[in-house]
Amino acid sequence: MEDLYDRVMDLARRRGFIWHSYEIYGGVRGFIDLGPLGVILKRRIEDKWRRFFVDRLGLLEIETPIVSPKIVFEASGHLEHFKDPMTVCTGCGRAYRLDHLIKDSVNIPDSRLEGLGLDDLEKLVYNYDIRCPQCGSKLGKPEYFLTMFETRIGPLSGDIGYARPETAQGIFIAFKRLLEYNRGSLPFGVAQIGRVLRNEISPRQGPIRLREFTIAEFEFFFDPEDRSCPYISEVENEELRILTAEQRIKGLDEPITITVGEAIGKGLIKLEWLAYFMALAKRFLRELGVPDDKQRFIEKLDSERAHYSIQGFDQEVYLSRWGWVEVSGHNYRTDYDLSRHQRFSGVELTVFKQYPSPIKAKKLVVKPDYRSIGSKYREEAKTIIATLSRMDPYDVKRAVSEKGWIEIEGYRIESSDIRFIEEDYEESGRKFIAHVVEPSFGVERMLYVVLEYAYSEVDGRIVLKLPKDLAPIQIAVYPLLSRDGLPEKAYQIYRSIKDAGFRVEYDESGSIGRRYARADEIGIPIVVTVDYRSLEDGTVTLRDRDTWRQVRVDTLNLVDKLRIYFEGRVSFSELGIPV
Amino acid sequence: MEDLYDRVMDLARRRGFIWHSYEIYGGVRGFIDLGPLGVILKRRIEDKWRRFFVDRLGLLEIETPIVSPKIVFEASGHLEHFKDPMTVCTGCGRAYRLDHLIKDSVNIPDSRLEGLGLDDLEKLVYNYDIRCPQCGSKLGKPEYFLTMFETRIGPLSGDIGYARPETAQGIFIAFKRLLEYNRGSLPFGVAQIGRVLRNEISPRQGPIRLREFTIAEFEFFFDPEDRSCPYISEVENEELRILTAEQRIKGLDEPITITVGEAIGKGLIKLEWLAYFMALAKRFLRELGVPDDKQRFIEKLDSERAHYSIQGFDQEVYLSRWGWVEVSGHNYRTDYDLSRHQRFSGVELTVFKQYPSPIKAKKLVVKPDYRSIGSKYREEAKTIIATLSRMDPYDVKRAVSEKGWIEIEGYRIESSDIRFIEEDYEESGRKFIAHVVEPSFGVERMLYVVLEYAYSEVDGRIVLKLPKDLAPIQIAVYPLLSRDGLPEKAYQIYRSIKDAGFRVEYDESGSIGRRYARADEIGIPIVVTVDYRSLEDGTVTLRDRDTWRQVRVDTLNLVDKLRIYFEGRVSFSELGIPV
Repeated sequence: MEDLYDRVMDLARRRGFIWHSYEIYGGVRGFIDLGPLGVILKRRIEDKWRRFFVDRLGLLEIETPIVSPKIVFEASGHLEHFKDPMTVCTGCGRAYRLDHLIKDSVNIPDSRLEGLGLDDLEKLVYNYDIRCPQCGSKLGKPEYFLTMFETRIGPLSGDIGYARPETAQGIFIAFKRLLEYNRGSLPFGVAQIGRVLRNEISPRQGPIRLREFTIAEFEFFFDPEDRSCPYISEVENEELRILTAEQRIKGLDEPITITVGEAIGKGLIKLEWLAYFMALAKRFLRELGVPDDKQRFIEKLDSERAHYSIQGFDQEVYLSRWGWVEVSGHNYRTDYDLSRHQRFSGVELTVFKQYPSPIKAKKLVVKPDYRSIGSKYREEAKTIIATLSRMDPYDVKRAVSEKGWIEIEGYRIESSDIRFIEEDYEESGRKFIAHVVEPSFGVERMLYVVLEYAYSEVDGRIVLKLPKDLAPIQIAVYPLLSRDGLPEKAYQIYRSIKDAGFRVEYDESGSIGRRYARADEIGIPIVVTVDYRSLEDGTVTLRDRDTWRQVRVDTLNLVDKLRIYFEGRVSFSELGIPV
Repeated sequence: MEDLYDRVMDLARRRGFIWHSYEIYGGVRGFIDLGPLGVILKRRIEDKWRRFFVDRLGLLEIETPIVSPKIVFEASGHLEHFKDPMTVCTGCGRAYRLDHLIKDSVNIPDSRLEGLGLDDLEKLVYNYDIRCPQCGSKLGKPEYFLTMFETRIGPLSGDIGYARPETAQGIFIAFKRLLEYNRGSLPFGVAQIGRVLRNEISPRQGPIRLREFTIAEFEFFFDPEDRSCPYISEVENEELRILTAEQRIKGLDEPITITVGEAIGKGLIKLEWLAYFMALAKRFLRELGVPDDKQRFIEKLDSERAHYSIQGFDQEVYLSRWGWVEVSGHNYRTDYDLSRHQRFSGVELTVFKQYPSPIKAKKLVVKPDYRSIGSKYREEAKTIIATLSRMDPYDVKRAVSEKGWIEIEGYRIESSDIRFIEEDYEESGRKFIAHVVEPSFGVERMLYVVLEYAYSEVDGRIVLKLPKDLAPIQIAVYPLLSRDGLPEKAYQIYRSIKDAGFRVEYDESGSIGRRYARADEIGIPIVVTVDYRSLEDGTVTLRDRDTWRQVRVDTLNLVDKLRIYFEGRVSFSELGIPV
């Protein structure tokens, strides 16, 4: 028996939304093509995301390359952390992602698996006698596999590069330019929608776990000493379903329902911006067709959280076959990435914030005794003094007061050779590294979610109840029959609707019933039918996809009526006289 | 002295159109970031391309992966052909693209270089004593470098993949699905806009020669027996400037000017569809701001043409620093790609076209003499007969009539063991492989072209005269001063313009003169200024970027006036009363 997933994917393939890539070569797991309707649906989702986040928050949007030199991922920590446990079957040579294999083989909750090291996983394999699901042989010793695609940039073999697994690093690296574009001030956010690649060991979930997919994410930079979100009141009564880390550790899996305001008040969400974006994300998925009770946020455990995050939530949506599946991640990345890139590049990535008026302050200054140091260290004296002047005076004072001396350039400098004085100075502002919170959405996952939640069967026929604003084709114009002047009249109406900017199709082939059925399958909200009466009195019927009801409308103000309908200002039945 | 290229790129960097990627790490050649304005400009160009080609021609648009398994590029011929000659300096170890190095070192026309083999290039290096431009050492032996990025898919080291250097293969591979989507009929076209990667040996031309960039291309499939383009009359009087292969071989470099109709009539362009798309491409570049005399098409020589093409033209645009630069390529790829994928995949990629009524025809049938073959070859007889039945009967007949026998499965089958008969049958239609013509545009190149052609300096100030429909920001709303209620009034006008769907910005910081200058630099066509009179009589001034003229307009119908202005229905001076 086909489950809902199979039926949705069958429709997706037949109707040109999604199919597996490289089908004629037997397919390669983890890659999908978007067909003609899939491309439009994806673009509608991306455009909606832009309106919802980019336009609302005034985000800057940039595009950076997929291929990045190695140092980027050394700095970002990905080379160290972006890897999954793998095992290769000693019999058939198949590779498996080990934590997934264990999860599929024995009943262990996610929360107990994700943080485990190779030794722990190996023990589980041994204890439960887990074997290759394909051939039954023993599994090889677990090892880590770096899940980034590696390549070489240019002809010289040393220049290793990786395909980005997230678009975020391109934003962090360009931070200086972006801050300048924003005239030096915080807060501001930078979005990127683009392809990313993750070299999954053995992906098996169609459009849910892909090796190549599209991320829509933004990095929102703010001053860590000014953490409040001015828009929080817009969402403070929005209810979120949250499964907290505390609950998860206790083995509970029923989320609590809590308002954004309470979640912040109780310290459950540690940052207002994080809570604000989570609330928006919930509303966004609701507008994609996912009801509130099919959404939840789960807080990541210490062991699960990405290396850059100090608090993170996954927004999950319930899917028929896969259960709760992440559609967006919300991480408080702090200053981790910018600090690391500052360190690895040697380029300052700080923000300067001017005080309303300069602050008088004292600072510690190290005064070396030039004569004494000169006589003791001769040629080395200059280097020693230069090094000393570059050091943090507080570090010098601490060392000297603890040990009575400090080692510089291999020489022991005694406390008697150094004086410390406090000087008055005026500080005109603060220099600091911006903190960042990141909402990150998987576009193909959302696309699948939209299809699954829109999918319905009525009287054995498929009706794809896509949200009106996402439907790849908004309106179809069909002549009842392909003769007697009906096609000409219908085509003329089609042109006028098209010229008004709608996504509209014209079709005269086959019976009207078959055309209605196809329109329902690809989720066209409104079909305009031109019949014999249209030739007489200039009226047409409009058919509503979701109720199959029909109304009769004059073509004179048809375009205006369609416009206010798609803007959500009138209901279908208000469009005309019921037929 | 800075040349135009430097000045354009300086502006592009300062104003957030384009900057080099990975700047804080010293940059990596061949990669650029698009900043906030660059992303919008790029999207405007892509949207325009969609309107111009996809909507006009009813193309299907799809999205396929960047990473492809090796067999795709074995089949497509890229593994064999997609390589450049390289040399590595024996002194400093720098790598050079050899043909470019020779071109830069000695004065040899392109047409004499592009088809040369490694031996020929080595001779040129020797004859002209060409050395490393960096250190003066001798150059190493030339070799070919495959200019695709290589990687591995999944953890098993055998699964080599490549990043696509064009989006076309994704379309060819999905041909069966696409034909089905198009209900089995030709002609139809399939577009793809997406990232591609080319591992250039030593790219040095900023946004002109990139290792990662965006291609907008489409494959237009047609029946080779029905080659006419029904829209050709739309463009037959369009004049094209063409530098033909014949001229180029003679060393001429002044293009001829010829109408599309004549070019087809004289056989200069071998295919109507090719000519039609070239004419559209010319108009497209004109709408991007490139005058006709700064465009030309050059016909590729046999030695230059891609391996899949039987006739090809590059559309070139004249750029200040780089001279004539390709912005789009137009190739008649015939059935090359589909045939190759059919062969490599074993999956039939033909089109079936029904005849109006079945045709009676005769076909050749091979009748083996079972008894004789059985007695001669015993256990092998079955295999021999099966093989024979799979062979093309005409091939069998030809072999037998030429040699008197045919070799099958290592055995010599004599003519006496085979009979040939002609059978009557009815053919209901033709099965054939579609031919394809491909226009392919480089998006980042077009973006740079737009910037260079929009760039102007007036009284020492930069004015970016972007085509109105491409301007990332269409309208700015500025209060004259940031006090006395002017900002509130201006912000309210800004909101109403934004709500009407325009790309609009609001800014109140700094003097109005500085804001005008910035608006000119980023190419905002119209600035709305709110002054004291606005508070009294509800009028505002509109300022035209290109002429700096101003008119006074009532805010009551401001949005409508802006709309008809951006639709090109009125000129600036018709918008209001001159100030």
